[in-house]
Amino acid sequence: MNICIIGLGLIGGSFALALRKYALTDRLYGVDASPRNAAKALELGLVDELIEWDRVAEAADIIVLATPVDVIPQLAIKLLNRIDDSRIVFDMGSTKEELCEIISQHPRRHRFVAAHPMWGTEHSGPEAAVEDAFVGCNTVLCDVEQSDADAVSAVERIFTTIGMKIMYMSPAQHDTHAAYVSHISHITSFILATTVLEKERESATILNLAGGGFESTVRLAKSSPDMWIPILMQNKYNVLDVLREYIHQLEIFRKALERDNRAEIRQTIERANEIRKVLDKK
Amino acid sequence: MNICIIGLGLIGGSFALALRKYALTDRLYGVDASPRNAAKALELGLVDELIEWDRVAEAADIIVLATPVDVIPQLAIKLLNRIDDSRIVFDMGSTKEELCEIISQHPRRHRFVAAHPMWGTEHSGPEAAVEDAFVGCNTVLCDVEQSDADAVSAVERIFTTIGMKIMYMSPAQHDTHAAYVSHISHITSFILATTVLEKERESATILNLAGGGFESTVRLAKSSPDMWIPILMQNKYNVLDVLREYIHQLEIFRKALERDNRAEIRQTIERANEIRKVLDKK
Repeated sequence: MNICIIGLGLIGGSFALALRKYALTDRLYGVDASPRNAAKALELGLVDELIEWDRVAEAADIIVLATPVDVIPQLAIKLLNRIDDSRIVFDMGSTKEELCEIISQHPRRHRFVAAHPMWGTEHSGPEAAVEDAFVGCNTVLCDVEQSDADAVSAVERIFTTIGMKIMYMSPAQHDTHAAYVSHISHITSFILATTVLEKERESATILNLAGGGFESTVRLAKSSPDMWIPILMQNKYNVLDVLREYIHQLEIFRKALERDNRAEIRQTIERANEIRKVLDKK
Repeated sequence: MNICIIGLGLIGGSFALALRKYALTDRLYGVDASPRNAAKALELGLVDELIEWDRVAEAADIIVLATPVDVIPQLAIKLLNRIDDSRIVFDMGSTKEELCEIISQHPRRHRFVAAHPMWGTEHSGPEAAVEDAFVGCNTVLCDVEQSDADAVSAVERIFTTIGMKIMYMSPAQHDTHAAYVSHISHITSFILATTVLEKERESATILNLAGGGFESTVRLAKSSPDMWIPILMQNKYNVLDVLREYIHQLEIFRKALERDNRAEIRQTIERANEIRKVLDKK
């Protein structure tokens, strides 16, 4: 079985390493819109061969979309236009509603599986690919009833073989949850970084004084705009809901601090501490 | 030389382990207001002996205050009231202005060294003490010109021996910087946790979907209210300044997202990405 990965950055590159490790593919093809990234991916041995976009639909049995989410819907349609019913296309994008709506009426929709393996780091590009990514994380599959059973099984087998668990959701549920547990964290980090960089103009001071706590909180601020702008735009309404709620809660905290309301501050911190129950289970 | 640590939690306990590792003390005494924590610290071997508060000023050559910051100023005054000029008192608190003001006119002020070793984790209590804490981090010393040279040297020697670098600042400078590089991170994490917990009432969903990014950003939300309420209250005006600026920047980002202003969002994320230059130097 031959697989082709479109998009050879952090996600596509790490997925390539996993496919090879578990011998899930005979020949691994790759495509990347950036000639530099494509060449780098080949040099790093992430893929066996770079191929032209026009050859993908015939060369690969399974085609994986691992590009930024703004181009996934159009690429999905173009691939569904070209493949025959023996092939499977799936994606690895962080948003699902826009994609699932756009492909919904395509006559070959049943050969597509909408997937989001929930893993990532703040780094980007083929050099950021890591071995044993994805292990222990969840893959969300959306609208599986619109995909052929054999296509869903094949995709599930790939994700479970590389160490992931499978969850099922509607695209709307997925995008709401993703806004809360992933997308908002990136905004809080981006803005924390800009706030601190704005004030602490001497980066040496930040460097010397910042402990592990700051570093952890601001880590995601290193994330790529090319990946994150499309995600935030596509999940705009959910992200705005969470962002408004977050700002509202910050305002309440600010007022409590202004008024020396220790009881309210304590209540908030103790409620926040409950996140321990969630994280410590992992 | 005998040392006594007042406050045997995360900071005092980790410091005890470091003092022992580098053989910086003959006998290590401990005091904790909580009988449970005191007993636990002894059981864990963090200190050699628990002593009564009234015996501290005579038993120890060096006395270390590692309690929550709200009680450090009073304890500092009480110790300075009782010690003779052969002894040294220093603190490890996260705020410095309030402390330095309160002790400033004490006739034995010169035997006190105001210190902030910039290290911590989100855990608390004697069980949270870790070996090799502090290594590679900075200790800020404030108002050293008000301390005797021998006292400053002794404290510097302890911190450098356990692997720390020394920086010098005024208490006001310290508290401003600490608000930016440490205190605000805790607020952004506390509020991120409460926002997500409020919405995602089924913690299983958070558990299943949250990746390493969320975990990193929200890690500090596990931090103890007993430690953090006093810090936020004592550094209230600096913290409020940063918090207002942070909320302001979030509002700007929210409006850019509402208006699909990709160029502005890109500019913000690219500015945030510059934190990479700071963190990657560490």
